[in-house]
Amino acid sequence: MAKNRTAITPTREENYAEWYQNVIKEAELAENSDVRGCMVIKPWGYTIWENMQRELDDMFKETGHTNAYFPLFIPLSYLQKEADHVEGFAKECAIVTHHRLTQQVDGKLVPDGKLDEPLVVRPTSETIIGASYAKWVNSYRDLPILINQWANVVRWEMRTRLFLRTTEFLWQEGHTVHATKAEAVEETFKMLNVYKKFAEEILAIPVIEGEKTESERFPGAVFTYSIEAMMQDKKALQSGTSHFLGQKFAKASKIKFQSKKGKEEFAWTTSWGVSTRLIGALIMTHADDNGMIIPPRIASAHIVILPIYKNDEEREKIFAVVNEIGKKVSKLRFHDRKIVIKVDDRDIRGGEKNWYWIKKGAPLKIEIGPKDLEKNTIAVLRRDNPSLKKSFIEVEEFVSNLIDTLDDIQNNMYNKAKKLLIDNTFEIDNYNEFVKFFTPKNINKPEIHGGFASSHWCGSVDCEERVKKFKVTIRNIPSSTKEEKGKCIICGKDSNKRVIFAKSY
Amino acid sequence: MAKNRTAITPTREENYAEWYQNVIKEAELAENSDVRGCMVIKPWGYTIWENMQRELDDMFKETGHTNAYFPLFIPLSYLQKEADHVEGFAKECAIVTHHRLTQQVDGKLVPDGKLDEPLVVRPTSETIIGASYAKWVNSYRDLPILINQWANVVRWEMRTRLFLRTTEFLWQEGHTVHATKAEAVEETFKMLNVYKKFAEEILAIPVIEGEKTESERFPGAVFTYSIEAMMQDKKALQSGTSHFLGQKFAKASKIKFQSKKGKEEFAWTTSWGVSTRLIGALIMTHADDNGMIIPPRIASAHIVILPIYKNDEEREKIFAVVNEIGKKVSKLRFHDRKIVIKVDDRDIRGGEKNWYWIKKGAPLKIEIGPKDLEKNTIAVLRRDNPSLKKSFIEVEEFVSNLIDTLDDIQNNMYNKAKKLLIDNTFEIDNYNEFVKFFTPKNINKPEIHGGFASSHWCGSVDCEERVKKFKVTIRNIPSSTKEEKGKCIICGKDSNKRVIFAKSY
Repeated sequence: MAKNRTAITPTREENYAEWYQNVIKEAELAENSDVRGCMVIKPWGYTIWENMQRELDDMFKETGHTNAYFPLFIPLSYLQKEADHVEGFAKECAIVTHHRLTQQVDGKLVPDGKLDEPLVVRPTSETIIGASYAKWVNSYRDLPILINQWANVVRWEMRTRLFLRTTEFLWQEGHTVHATKAEAVEETFKMLNVYKKFAEEILAIPVIEGEKTESERFPGAVFTYSIEAMMQDKKALQSGTSHFLGQKFAKASKIKFQSKKGKEEFAWTTSWGVSTRLIGALIMTHADDNGMIIPPRIASAHIVILPIYKNDEEREKIFAVVNEIGKKVSKLRFHDRKIVIKVDDRDIRGGEKNWYWIKKGAPLKIEIGPKDLEKNTIAVLRRDNPSLKKSFIEVEEFVSNLIDTLDDIQNNMYNKAKKLLIDNTFEIDNYNEFVKFFTPKNINKPEIHGGFASSHWCGSVDCEERVKKFKVTIRNIPSSTKEEKGKCIICGKDSNKRVIFAKSY
Repeated sequence: MAKNRTAITPTREENYAEWYQNVIKEAELAENSDVRGCMVIKPWGYTIWENMQRELDDMFKETGHTNAYFPLFIPLSYLQKEADHVEGFAKECAIVTHHRLTQQVDGKLVPDGKLDEPLVVRPTSETIIGASYAKWVNSYRDLPILINQWANVVRWEMRTRLFLRTTEFLWQEGHTVHATKAEAVEETFKMLNVYKKFAEEILAIPVIEGEKTESERFPGAVFTYSIEAMMQDKKALQSGTSHFLGQKFAKASKIKFQSKKGKEEFAWTTSWGVSTRLIGALIMTHADDNGMIIPPRIASAHIVILPIYKNDEEREKIFAVVNEIGKKVSKLRFHDRKIVIKVDDRDIRGGEKNWYWIKKGAPLKIEIGPKDLEKNTIAVLRRDNPSLKKSFIEVEEFVSNLIDTLDDIQNNMYNKAKKLLIDNTFEIDNYNEFVKFFTPKNINKPEIHGGFASSHWCGSVDCEERVKKFKVTIRNIPSSTKEEKGKCIICGKDSNKRVIFAKSY
């Protein structure tokens, strides 16, 4: 491949949206199915999700949560129990109306067995889980309930994009019940922090945690917090949310308990979730013009080995080294996990195979050929190195440095993403500058703009609405924001803190 | 609790079906939801499923499979591609016909946004996965495809029973594609054997593996093999199936490939699955009149510790021992897994707490009270011991024997179940005896009968139909069956092998 060509065409610079689709295609992460808006998550992509699940699940369990499973279907009357909630989801849900198919005289199969009450395929499970909780909670002794569910959910999106917005997606939804407001608020923040830690330490994605504005809250929530990440096109991606639901859903579902003092009270609930959307965040944070780059902590394989040989004799010698590496590595643990090695011994052209794996993004790629044997070295590529330059090192050295190398790749990826976030976040206090910041310099590349603006906001929904004409929204009010006197960037009225404005997915 | 009382009422003997429901209720494994036929899998039950998933998933990966995820919805036209297949599922599927809700003038929400083509909530995924495979397979080099999916599926059952038959259930479905018939047949048997090994070694459930008769095949399969287990009421429970689909689904979905010789050929496919039904099998194999008993290999917790104390001083001393046990056990591994200890320090009556845990069925229960401290021992209950008699042993001894004890419990549970199967399987060669075998001795307990009959069958569907009046079916033609001349138990015609007849779930 010529020096100035890249494995992914177009490049990020040339066409970001198309680059994104092609990274997914070339790394075989997912594809569109024939079912409108539903994706197929292919093995290489699904492994990333499995690894995310494993890490997050451990964090949930460490914080006292257990998993359970609730029905896929929600009776229409349940969804209606909370007014804001149903309004938020009514326009985009799949409705089951019949329970069998019958053959007509002309041979055509048609829905039959009409249900008395339509069922909604869960877009989220507050109301159906609330119905169970209402039965389970009687006394303060039954609290707290700390349950998570791994599940598929359906929201009938009109415009879909792989991982970022699909009709069906996979997620986890935590649903907790508490005796006091203070405990429920604490839980909301605890899980927000779990998400932040997970995003930063495991996915190597730096995030800004903060409160969503009223108009961006989860339908029915008292307040919603989010973690927001900056993608390489400087747009924001909401990557996880944690909601304090107050007593609103407890009242809707009648989750009541006898307090220590013997008084009947409504409980306080929270919910929180992340989804396969995080795989989209991962791609847009880490992938480059040569394809996917997967952080070591969730890599489908940590090391890919490509043996190069011309005959059986050579093959035998090469595989002796491959097996030696396998044996030595099997004794190591990377953050308490086994290290996964994939050996690609397929009979295809070396160049093709090499680029195939570069595009797939495993952290380390090793080539071992007859020349390497002579020199007693192996050719190691660190996928996070944009130059794609190989180092030639001895097996012994490779293995003894392996854990450090993987940690270094993980940190390097995080630091690079963190630099992007810092370099493209600006305090802006002048409206004209603000407008210019969000105005694309090139009309053909509307997505290219300044980044995140940290600016004052007076708190009015009206001001929030006015910036939407630039496709800019308030991402969140960062938890780290300090009290500071200033003027609203939009209306000029008094404001006491900065918020994050950005274009977003 | 008086000696002659049991924790579960009624007992197995008194009312088996009700006993089953009550074991589930008391062990908090699952419950019915308000959504017709859909269950809520509660944390203690879901942990069993998670542990099953973990063990099975390892076995799938060891045999070269990877996981992926395909859409929940199947276009009606896809399901129709294979004639037998659609006929098998048309009468019991949830149909999505609309994609939003709209408020009528009277305020009522009604389904709106009618779909051009109805979508079927997957009852199984051969056709939707086949559509992807048709795109992925072009050359013999693309084969085999060895993919598994963990998912929820929906079959609109009219009569449901927790775990055994529910409208929505969780399962795994493997879907593989091969270049030759021989390879696909080999895969079918390989996975049947994985299921057998999983059932026997991990779930401690002995099974009979064999071929289903034509009338009991999976809709669209060329042949279906199953593993069948005997429940404590001597009825059979089909616990897993592996299907050789020939080229039928490949033709329906157009999964074609260029062979090595350059010829275009249809591929050969298989599918195989087990579901949350296995939790039902587990209960009906192992639970007793005092509740659930979970095999150590999939236990939600291996050890439950109940500290007994009256004041802070005692508590401190007791917890010193609890922590000592925790520390020592944390160094051990049971079949490469961490050993899970649950400490129940809730402020409820000792007797209540004790029976609560007996009904939950963790393999080992430990009580530690002031008297135990004096004697330097702990009170250990092996849940597989029907007498519920405790042993008083020293911590050191308990810990050093722990792995052996857990293995012993596992083996003991398997052997007990194996004995039931052997003791209640009879070679029957006389029709009157056969009828008597399946005729309940007590009219009030129609479920009590002889067990499994190993009898000759001529192979005719007609004979198979005739025994259905006793609610008896051929469970399978065991793989271990030997060629043996005999006469069909029903019609008396020549037969060359025995099959397993039984009542079943």
